[in-house]
Amino acid sequence: MNAEKTPWKNWKHITKLDPDKYISPDVLEIIVESGTDAIMISGTQNITTKNTYQLISLLKSYKIPKILEPVTPEVVLSEDVDYIFVPLVLNASDVDWIIGKHKDWIMKQSITWEKVIPEAYIVMNPESAVAQVTKSKTDLATDEVIAYAQYAERYLGLPIIYIEYSGAYGDPNVVKRVTESLNKASLFYGGGIESQQDAVEMKRYADVIVVGNVVYTSIDKFIATIPR
Amino acid sequence: MNAEKTPWKNWKHITKLDPDKYISPDVLEIIVESGTDAIMISGTQNITTKNTYQLISLLKSYKIPKILEPVTPEVVLSEDVDYIFVPLVLNASDVDWIIGKHKDWIMKQSITWEKVIPEAYIVMNPESAVAQVTKSKTDLATDEVIAYAQYAERYLGLPIIYIEYSGAYGDPNVVKRVTESLNKASLFYGGGIESQQDAVEMKRYADVIVVGNVVYTSIDKFIATIPR
Repeated sequence: MNAEKTPWKNWKHITKLDPDKYISPDVLEIIVESGTDAIMISGTQNITTKNTYQLISLLKSYKIPKILEPVTPEVVLSEDVDYIFVPLVLNASDVDWIIGKHKDWIMKQSITWEKVIPEAYIVMNPESAVAQVTKSKTDLATDEVIAYAQYAERYLGLPIIYIEYSGAYGDPNVVKRVTESLNKASLFYGGGIESQQDAVEMKRYADVIVVGNVVYTSIDKFIATIPR
Repeated sequence: MNAEKTPWKNWKHITKLDPDKYISPDVLEIIVESGTDAIMISGTQNITTKNTYQLISLLKSYKIPKILEPVTPEVVLSEDVDYIFVPLVLNASDVDWIIGKHKDWIMKQSITWEKVIPEAYIVMNPESAVAQVTKSKTDLATDEVIAYAQYAERYLGLPIIYIEYSGAYGDPNVVKRVTESLNKASLFYGGGIESQQDAVEMKRYADVIVVGNVVYTSIDKFIATIPR
């Protein structure tokens, strides 16, 4: 465990694994050795301490950076992960996903703050579980997306802006416009990357691309998303 | 105009002046020369570009640091002020006062970011205009107030936590507990300071005390609140 301050500055590709989905140890080994820069343990539905801990245990013997991205305060484990990337959802209409759950987490737990990195999400796909759970306003003009990103970067001074299309491939022009509006923050993009072409296109604008679902449908397609 | 990064680290006492209230040039001179460290131009109700500009104009010839604390995106003037302290209200139940108005401001204006400092408010007095306008949840256990403060300091990394009792003298024990829970952020306290005793008590725990209303009722009482 060796927590650098801004490790993602050297990353291009993160693999998101869902504790609620089965993955075989063999496939996990292929992922870890694929060239992906880090593993993010993250899901929206049916996330429990048990399935989160199981996935972390499977990863334990690998040296690859391991990030827990908790969805609720109940499932924050800091042992055996290098980082805890804690999201806030800039375009949530429910204040719980901006401050409320975080406050409850701070009240209930002893937090390993050295591992905590804030991530400012902009949730774009109205069909996604994350948009529905957080009641995100996804009907946004590009200028509004940019304003959210600038709020996070320049007003709050947060290090990561995460454009999340979760389950759908997003609009590269939105990602391009947001990246052009940022000075210091790193831009993460996630959603619908299932081929080399998708990955190359979004990586052109995002600092880091996050690839998730395709891992569970085709490991070959997943491998094609790794930048080379 | 000489904007330092964290000027408030050398401040003890800020005077808050309300653009909606009349102040004579003579009284203004007494205030500026009283030993207060900065003037904050701030109000909640009936704030217009016109009355804000008038107050800024009256202050123009003085060298004392001038801070605009805008209440709405419509009244953000950056000329002739050294800093723009932009609040977010941690315990607002209306997301507008955390992100929404800020996003609109960013969309509509060209912002002098070098002057902008974020302030994380915790609004404590349910009777106050600010509590009502922001729909703040003021019925908070001290542990909850601390959790909000830690969210702002450790999660967001904000430089100023502002405990605002606006119009009422607060609970020194709450201020004490919050200050003990912070590492780096500066703690501002505002509300009901009308005597030397009030000022000394709150200054014991807060890094900076903010004095406002008493200016309009008794300039002698105001003078007594300046730390010496």
